[in-house]
Amino acid sequence: MPSVTRLLPTPEAHDLLELTREIADKELAPHADDFEARGEFPRELIRTLGRSGLLGLPYSAEYGGAEQPYEVYLQVLEILASRWVGIAETVSVHTLACYPLAHHGTAEQRERWLPDMIGGELLGAYCLSEPAGGSDAANLATKATRDGETYRVSGTKAWITHAGVADFYNVFCRTGGPGPKGISCLLAPADTPGLNPQAREKTMGLRSSPVAQIALDDAVVPAERLIGGEGEGFRIAMGALDSGRLGIAACAIGLAQGALDYAVNYARERVQFGKPIIDLQGLGFLLADASTQITAARALMLHAARLRDAGLPYSIEAAKTKLFATDMAMQVATDAVQVLGGAGYVADHPVERYFREAKVLQIVEGTNQIQRMVIARSLAKD
Amino acid sequence: MPSVTRLLPTPEAHDLLELTREIADKELAPHADDFEARGEFPRELIRTLGRSGLLGLPYSAEYGGAEQPYEVYLQVLEILASRWVGIAETVSVHTLACYPLAHHGTAEQRERWLPDMIGGELLGAYCLSEPAGGSDAANLATKATRDGETYRVSGTKAWITHAGVADFYNVFCRTGGPGPKGISCLLAPADTPGLNPQAREKTMGLRSSPVAQIALDDAVVPAERLIGGEGEGFRIAMGALDSGRLGIAACAIGLAQGALDYAVNYARERVQFGKPIIDLQGLGFLLADASTQITAARALMLHAARLRDAGLPYSIEAAKTKLFATDMAMQVATDAVQVLGGAGYVADHPVERYFREAKVLQIVEGTNQIQRMVIARSLAKD
Amino acid sequence: MPSVTRLLPTPEAHDLLELTREIADKELAPHADDFEARGEFPRELIRTLGRSGLLGLPYSAEYGGAEQPYEVYLQVLEILASRWVGIAETVSVHTLACYPLAHHGTAEQRERWLPDMIGGELLGAYCLSEPAGGSDAANLATKATRDGETYRVSGTKAWITHAGVADFYNVFCRTGGPGPKGISCLLAPADTPGLNPQAREKTMGLRSSPVAQIALDDAVVPAERLIGGEGEGFRIAMGALDSGRLGIAACAIGLAQGALDYAVNYARERVQFGKPIIDLQGLGFLLADASTQITAARALMLHAARLRDAGLPYSIEAAKTKLFATDMAMQVATDAVQVLGGAGYVADHPVERYFREAKVLQIVEGTNQIQRMVIARSLAKD
Amino acid sequence: MPSVTRLLPTPEAHDLLELTREIADKELAPHADDFEARGEFPRELIRTLGRSGLLGLPYSAEYGGAEQPYEVYLQVLEILASRWVGIAETVSVHTLACYPLAHHGTAEQRERWLPDMIGGELLGAYCLSEPAGGSDAANLATKATRDGETYRVSGTKAWITHAGVADFYNVFCRTGGPGPKGISCLLAPADTPGLNPQAREKTMGLRSSPVAQIALDDAVVPAERLIGGEGEGFRIAMGALDSGRLGIAACAIGLAQGALDYAVNYARERVQFGKPIIDLQGLGFLLADASTQITAARALMLHAARLRDAGLPYSIEAAKTKLFATDMAMQVATDAVQVLGGAGYVADHPVERYFREAKVLQIVEGTNQIQRMVIARSLAKD
Repeated sequence: MPSVTRLLPTPEAHDLLELTREIADKELAPHADDFEARGEFPRELIRTLGRSGLLGLPYSAEYGGAEQPYEVYLQVLEILASRWVGIAETVSVHTLACYPLAHHGTAEQRERWLPDMIGGELLGAYCLSEPAGGSDAANLATKATRDGETYRVSGTKAWITHAGVADFYNVFCRTGGPGPKGISCLLAPADTPGLNPQAREKTMGLRSSPVAQIALDDAVVPAERLIGGEGEGFRIAMGALDSGRLGIAACAIGLAQGALDYAVNYARERVQFGKPIIDLQGLGFLLADASTQITAARALMLHAARLRDAGLPYSIEAAKTKLFATDMAMQVATDAVQVLGGAGYVADHPVERYFREAKVLQIVEGTNQIQRMVIARSLAKD
Repeated sequence: MPSVTRLLPTPEAHDLLELTREIADKELAPHADDFEARGEFPRELIRTLGRSGLLGLPYSAEYGGAEQPYEVYLQVLEILASRWVGIAETVSVHTLACYPLAHHGTAEQRERWLPDMIGGELLGAYCLSEPAGGSDAANLATKATRDGETYRVSGTKAWITHAGVADFYNVFCRTGGPGPKGISCLLAPADTPGLNPQAREKTMGLRSSPVAQIALDDAVVPAERLIGGEGEGFRIAMGALDSGRLGIAACAIGLAQGALDYAVNYARERVQFGKPIIDLQGLGFLLADASTQITAARALMLHAARLRDAGLPYSIEAAKTKLFATDMAMQVATDAVQVLGGAGYVADHPVERYFREAKVLQIVEGTNQIQRMVIARSLAKD
Repeated sequence: MPSVTRLLPTPEAHDLLELTREIADKELAPHADDFEARGEFPRELIRTLGRSGLLGLPYSAEYGGAEQPYEVYLQVLEILASRWVGIAETVSVHTLACYPLAHHGTAEQRERWLPDMIGGELLGAYCLSEPAGGSDAANLATKATRDGETYRVSGTKAWITHAGVADFYNVFCRTGGPGPKGISCLLAPADTPGLNPQAREKTMGLRSSPVAQIALDDAVVPAERLIGGEGEGFRIAMGALDSGRLGIAACAIGLAQGALDYAVNYARERVQFGKPIIDLQGLGFLLADASTQITAARALMLHAARLRDAGLPYSIEAAKTKLFATDMAMQVATDAVQVLGGAGYVADHPVERYFREAKVLQIVEGTNQIQRMVIARSLAKD
Repeated sequence: MPSVTRLLPTPEAHDLLELTREIADKELAPHADDFEARGEFPRELIRTLGRSGLLGLPYSAEYGGAEQPYEVYLQVLEILASRWVGIAETVSVHTLACYPLAHHGTAEQRERWLPDMIGGELLGAYCLSEPAGGSDAANLATKATRDGETYRVSGTKAWITHAGVADFYNVFCRTGGPGPKGISCLLAPADTPGLNPQAREKTMGLRSSPVAQIALDDAVVPAERLIGGEGEGFRIAMGALDSGRLGIAACAIGLAQGALDYAVNYARERVQFGKPIIDLQGLGFLLADASTQITAARALMLHAARLRDAGLPYSIEAAKTKLFATDMAMQVATDAVQVLGGAGYVADHPVERYFREAKVLQIVEGTNQIQRMVIARSLAKD
């Protein structure tokens, strides 16, 4: 079974991926089944990642980041995901949660909070969606009213990853009129009075990673925690989403690679009709198609990342990558279970977990229908 | 939302389907989530079905059956599955487990055991697969040796639905030489000495229905419980499987219809971008495709059933139906979750359960790769 | 290779299908390549069909029809299409062109024209589409103004099958205000002054069957040729389309069956890597999938036809059938070429023709996007 | 409509692509329809390309090549193909035909023939397939016997692009025992006595590019035209094929981009139901998916090319690229016709041509089933 061949930009990147693989194999993978089965968030393991420098890869060295190109950061995510998707998603969400401050914060704001975030002492969450408008972010309803040196915030945020375990929350809220221009971004600490994580959602997979609503009940956030100016929130959110979509794509590609590797190993050892089942074209072609789709998804992801790294527009390519990679991962995970047959349907093998986990990736950070809207509009406009 | 239009052969069939719908809605559906969440087998509910005559639909009235054509029986299964797949699968497996006795038993054997089986007092299981050869039944290894008036049976049967809750087990075992000609069928009672259900498999879905290995450790089965002659077991098993495949297809079609109905209702009520999301072509077309596929699968199933009812060969059509219906159900369930977005991924809505349940249908009673082998061979031969 | 097993309603239907098969094999198939290559319409062969009673199958015996249920008529079409799609399409279009008169004409109108149409002396065409609005029939622009005992008609009809070879044209035109309520249907003879077929379209396939625009330049049609009342045209057109969609589906299923049969025969004889290529699972599974899809499409078509025959609503099922069968035929034809490899790409084998012909079936009588709109709307409404 | 964003390795590459685009737009595209309709090989246009340096892009400057990395060469091919697939295929086949000499010829052989080949004075062909064994090259039957300073060659080569218009033919033939080790490569000039191109195949598309069998009837080829040693032919052929597969993939990607661009422009201008049809999600999503698939295919192709350019193994990636890109192109071309509806089915618009052309790309240089075999084997082996 050929391993993945990567063309990396620097020897440093090569070492970083090796390090990631080692940490993932030795410190993460052995705990995955256990945390996922119990639905417990691996806070200490995340801290370990932070200490290893894996929580601030794309950010400035000035604040403790590794200043790695997105091309490299995403491959780190991918490798993490191939061993434990939940951990990779946490890194992706946390990196997303650092984006508003890192890209739109003032120097003072960055100096004050960013090092702890990047170092993994402070875990982040990202509160954009609401119960009534999952996909229609421009019309969000959470209201923030300026009151002296604070904002008073009321509303409900939905589908918040890290709810209850995060140390800070990016809260996108309406400080002005209707539509995208009235939205702002507040970086609220977890102990904000009136900011209350609700009961955990009973998610089908990624159970180590809590998801819940955040109720904001006249929550009081200091005005100094406004990131960017008033009204800039939607633009910030969309910029962060472009990056976040690539992160989710990396999770999907890692998941699919992990599922394929497992299925290939199984199919090489499992004998039916007198030979290893991988030698039956019916399964061999299915695995060949899966391998082809994964390689294509990875190449597409790296193309989008290199555009971003080169300072070129990459929003459409990010949408394409998220769409392609997550649809692909769902198919590959479904097929990986099929290769194992009955064995694939039980908890003794991880492919049933991959299957449950893959589904959510088609939904988060903009459903794949939203991605198609974004792409179709780009084709329609002049 | 148009309901399903059915062309039924008799007014009696119409009444039977109405009765099924009523039982399913009132007595089964309200308990589904609960039993599935707890992983508890609803033995009493099954008894209720037996008392209502739903456990022996295709069998002779002489033994308490309803003598319904398969065309009708499968639509009963489908309606049950649209409310609770686990129950429908139990009915399908039990009906399959009655097949060897009903079709190949002597009059004496039938009189002795069949009425209680059909009446639901005795629940059945079907033990064909083994750990080493899930798909390659002709080479099964479980050994039965004649010893006076008994057979002594040793080996392990795998993936046995109703393991531990069944009252009788069809045990396919080798009484002769290698290959299909050396296989026989024993109808072993649950209290057979040496017949030991093992620990339950931790299945991803259909958790109300226990699946486990059955260890046969020098189990002693009276020779009078041999169904058909020695060496006829493989032929019996394959005949039963043809019928069983249609049963699984009916489960898949019911599941898909249930998932579609739920998603359609959701999409009609959920408003995004100012209108119900079902009015967005992106989702509307996806639902239209799902509805088309379900209608095609049902028509295909009825075609195969009518061939069976007419006494014509239907083995290839059964394989096609199982293949088409279960691949379709997996896709429809995946898309139904997508229509709900984040809401589809949590236990508050049943579509996440449908999604987990659909997967196993592509695997049981011959994986869909086995179905393709069966169909391809029919195309290849003269 | 198993032949298709059909469950027919009457012995008469069985004989009719046998007759069709014989005519198709002996009188049609030998000429197909030649007429298609030359792009010549086989007017005499169509007359032969008429004399054999195959041009008025679903219509009343009073006018020379065979009063066959749609279930049977569609299987006749399917068998014709499996030998020569062009001929089957002609029969389908002609049958469609008889629909307005047969279902909405007065007794006097029917007596006057229908026998010659059903007998094949008068070949029909159906003029609904226009250049500006292929899919949006309710907004058609062709204008008809009452002038004493005539209508004066101006406008352009597009994509008219049988243009220039038909003897009569159903012309849908606007006699009233905008929208569907302003549309009427005129049955114009081919020699109508001002009704001018334009140059043939250079179609990729189905070349024996001419397609062109019909220019109506102040064409004068006697008012007695109004079918139904003024304003009833749209309703007539939609009713005819429901039936016509089933006809196109039958063409698609016949085409796919013809392509599969050819590919299977080829794959049984072609040896590569030491065995017939049908024994390689890579191709065997592809053929198994094709065979499964065809059987499903046929079952779906028969379901829709039986609803129609039973006098039940079948419009949505007709849309599903057209969508499913023609998408399926495109895939099967594409794969049939693939099975033959290079040989499939050249005119020595008919599969390259099937491939070119299949594509148009996804487009005519409502593109498959229109079918999805129809189905989606039925799901959305109460 | 956003144009394609490319990350090129050098400014020179950027200029080369601009030059290609200009030549393609001004000198090639205006003639495409005409040559394709007449089925005439555009020999003079090919010479023009040679004079512009586009026929020897990847080869050494020593012999007149441009020493461009494959990454750049393939994008040149892609741009040519987006305007005229036939021309791009000719460049790909010619470049493939130069490969054995350029990579395995002696310095003397290269000096003697390569400059004219690269300069476009001598057009090449590649004779590997045979009638009996399209996909099973290792068992080819064409026999070459050493006779003094010549080889006498007998057999038939099939599916030879440029048959009858080429100036030289790479003839793979058996000089030794059975299997891959007995195969050698001869570079036969077109005027070789006994080398006779047969009648053109009647191909469905790419009609400007003649395809035919080459009959070798005791053909006499000077022994100095043996490329590599005796027995090295299979290895040479496979190496050339890896490169050739990337060339076909580039043709497919260009074709798909051309088809998408045309469909998008049409969908932006065509109004139905009161708006441009691209604004209907049903079509918008279809186009978004096509655009996503094309971008993924291009990224995959560039990944494989960069591996080749880096001197790393790329054979599996070439197979994946050929498989993915050509399956994708078939789908995109099918959908592009659909977007145009009836207009897509006639010769007035180029999409019907793309559709006919796309199909052959799934077949040449190893059918996509062969690619899957190659990939599956790589997964199966240690």
